[in-house]
Amino acid sequence: MSSSRKLHLNAFLMNTGHHEASWRHPETEPQRTTDIRYYQQLARIAEDAKLDSLFLADGYVLMGNVKYRASAGLEPFTMLSALASVTERIGLIATVSTTYNEPFHVARMFASLDHISGGRAGWNIVTSSGDATAQNFSLEAHPEHSSRYRRAREFLDVTTSLWDSWADDALVIDRQAGIFADTEKVRPIHFKGDTFSVKGPLNIPRPPQGYPVLVQAGSSENGKDFAARVAEAIFTAQQTIEDAQAFYADVKARMLQYGRSPEQLKVLPGLSPVIADSEWEAQEKEAELHRLTIPEYGLTRLSELLKVDLFEYPLDGPLPYDKIPTVDSINGNKSRFQLVVDMASRENLTIREVILRTAGGRGHLTFAGTAGQAADLIEEWFTNGAADGFNIMPPHLPGSLIDFVQKVVPELQRRGLFRTEYEGRTLRDHLGLSRPANGYWSASG
Amino acid sequence: MSSSRKLHLNAFLMNTGHHEASWRHPETEPQRTTDIRYYQQLARIAEDAKLDSLFLADGYVLMGNVKYRASAGLEPFTMLSALASVTERIGLIATVSTTYNEPFHVARMFASLDHISGGRAGWNIVTSSGDATAQNFSLEAHPEHSSRYRRAREFLDVTTSLWDSWADDALVIDRQAGIFADTEKVRPIHFKGDTFSVKGPLNIPRPPQGYPVLVQAGSSENGKDFAARVAEAIFTAQQTIEDAQAFYADVKARMLQYGRSPEQLKVLPGLSPVIADSEWEAQEKEAELHRLTIPEYGLTRLSELLKVDLFEYPLDGPLPYDKIPTVDSINGNKSRFQLVVDMASRENLTIREVILRTAGGRGHLTFAGTAGQAADLIEEWFTNGAADGFNIMPPHLPGSLIDFVQKVVPELQRRGLFRTEYEGRTLRDHLGLSRPANGYWSASG
Repeated sequence: MSSSRKLHLNAFLMNTGHHEASWRHPETEPQRTTDIRYYQQLARIAEDAKLDSLFLADGYVLMGNVKYRASAGLEPFTMLSALASVTERIGLIATVSTTYNEPFHVARMFASLDHISGGRAGWNIVTSSGDATAQNFSLEAHPEHSSRYRRAREFLDVTTSLWDSWADDALVIDRQAGIFADTEKVRPIHFKGDTFSVKGPLNIPRPPQGYPVLVQAGSSENGKDFAARVAEAIFTAQQTIEDAQAFYADVKARMLQYGRSPEQLKVLPGLSPVIADSEWEAQEKEAELHRLTIPEYGLTRLSELLKVDLFEYPLDGPLPYDKIPTVDSINGNKSRFQLVVDMASRENLTIREVILRTAGGRGHLTFAGTAGQAADLIEEWFTNGAADGFNIMPPHLPGSLIDFVQKVVPELQRRGLFRTEYEGRTLRDHLGLSRPANGYWSASG
Repeated sequence: MSSSRKLHLNAFLMNTGHHEASWRHPETEPQRTTDIRYYQQLARIAEDAKLDSLFLADGYVLMGNVKYRASAGLEPFTMLSALASVTERIGLIATVSTTYNEPFHVARMFASLDHISGGRAGWNIVTSSGDATAQNFSLEAHPEHSSRYRRAREFLDVTTSLWDSWADDALVIDRQAGIFADTEKVRPIHFKGDTFSVKGPLNIPRPPQGYPVLVQAGSSENGKDFAARVAEAIFTAQQTIEDAQAFYADVKARMLQYGRSPEQLKVLPGLSPVIADSEWEAQEKEAELHRLTIPEYGLTRLSELLKVDLFEYPLDGPLPYDKIPTVDSINGNKSRFQLVVDMASRENLTIREVILRTAGGRGHLTFAGTAGQAADLIEEWFTNGAADGFNIMPPHLPGSLIDFVQKVVPELQRRGLFRTEYEGRTLRDHLGLSRPANGYWSASG
């Protein structure tokens, strides 16, 4: 590995935190999950620590059981735009689905967010899951996996063409001559595909970053292929360094067939860290969250993921493997399904143990230990082909984020793995990604 | 009129200003039309003057000819969210079309903006115009006028039901008992209409204002009827006090058939004011903008509005009335079409004069004079049943907005017509509108 290679750290924000019981933790403020000042405080903590970016997951349905969990919050475009006003450097990554949106709107919103933030926007491209989502958009059923990915690929083609519909130098602004824009450099795209026909041009000039940073989070075969083709960062859930190495090698190898270099995509596994000054204390902090977990919530969540009613089985017995369907029959979140089944069977976990193991990170790697131990894990994965950085999922907010930035980040900086100051202004700068040339105007001159 | 009745003033922001030549004016900054700091500066000017709200028009197509005009800027949801972070009181009104959007997304974005701003969101409901818009959304042609309004009515029913899908007291947040929300007070809406089937509930709690303030801008028969049924403020274009009085009386009378009281809707005609210390100076300032006007741009704009190629006629001759179609054949912007034809024929204007008369306000009332004269006009319309306030359209920005707030607003305050301090925190407070009761939870108890 080159010594100049730097680790990337993303703060994955989620209302009171990623642990499903975080809203019951005495240090969280669950009454503030729709209060923008709360998120502004989190954004400043992450920016003060020089993290690459903030990230928001999203879905178009009320997730989980709101009786037992703080699961309804602000919408990403509006929230990140509001955060852009009170930050200067940190990247702002919004999850937006290609299944239930129009490419013209999505291209425009990201272009606008990128202008507003001075080039800090990122798009986590998802295809959504579940019939309940479809039923909020006048459809009966969620489209099937491979058709969603076909639509996603075409959606991306439309949005990138729209961003490229203005040349970077289209604005002339010659007051004397009375020429605002060079209309030879603003053109309709006349896109005609299987799903979309979009004339263009976009009604906003090309974003400062050319395109927002394109991020992907699916780890299914279709997901990995899509990531290899278009993504510049990938959020993934990996439980072991071996699995992470295999995933890392797989997606980077797939990039070659699309003529892309492996450095053009940053692999960022999720990590939900509980940090304390001693290992014992960290484990006690984690146990405190586990004690606040509501079994009914975990059973509901796990039953939905595994498509089997776990309320009918003993909490302290094994998963009913013979009742769990095969991964082929899962429509959405295939890779998370497989990961949880594999983990439970590999480690002989009881249903209760599976609930607790996924209560903090929903299948992402959880960790409880000292800052040195966390830095060791991060360094090991980073230097051994398992990760280009991490998607940090604080179990409770702001406490676990503060612990991470005050204890772990300085240790990573001491080891020369993480920046001590931002070197650039845009999210592409932070991630070491080049600004995409304009696909139309560079080709035609 | 009651002495407690107060005037409402909205600042209609538009890149370098409403005059189409504003970007050539020496005091504007056309290179900043995608710079959020520029709009933050405008927002602060308007808020310091205690105006009710900021308003952004919108469309999903590159409008006009960008060769001759600064016509591409930021998207309203992202821009107003970014402005919410740097303001405290002023209302934030976004234009969003019901023709090219999904009600779930729109309900959610407005709920999010309303939470982010602490109850300052408003929705200017439009149905869009033009086949070019349709062609950015995989359609050939723009839907016909009355079908757009049918969709708009159903769209509104869905969005209000979604905002009402959470009772105002749905959040319990009892950490000890482990109850986050009372799921008896969060319900699916199971909406089934001609166009939309939406299950719900929304994935964000009810907005602070219940619903964002509902605003409408169409003045066609369908538009007036829609406004009378649902709107709480209406932006309208009126050239004379007589026309404004007729319009005012018409929409307020129509409200009765929907069981609404006339005070529940504020009629706000557009006014594009050029203010100076003397009438002569104001006229010279207006003439300076007119001299910067580009005839090709005006001819293109007017030809598009009137559906006739005006390049074939002498600039200093009359409009070719026999070639202009009837209003029935116009699909979109019917009322503006009629207003411009009527004005030209009533005042015997040449084509050049029509271009100049509409270059500043696109059919809205333009005014050049002293602060006292402007206050006289505003007071006359306000006290004689022509307006509840005005939608102020500064010809160039920030200059004409600064002139208005520094010269006209203090005069209106001296006359006791306009507030000297905000009395409430929400846009509903400023407009004197009540917070809508929850349509579902109040009915069922």
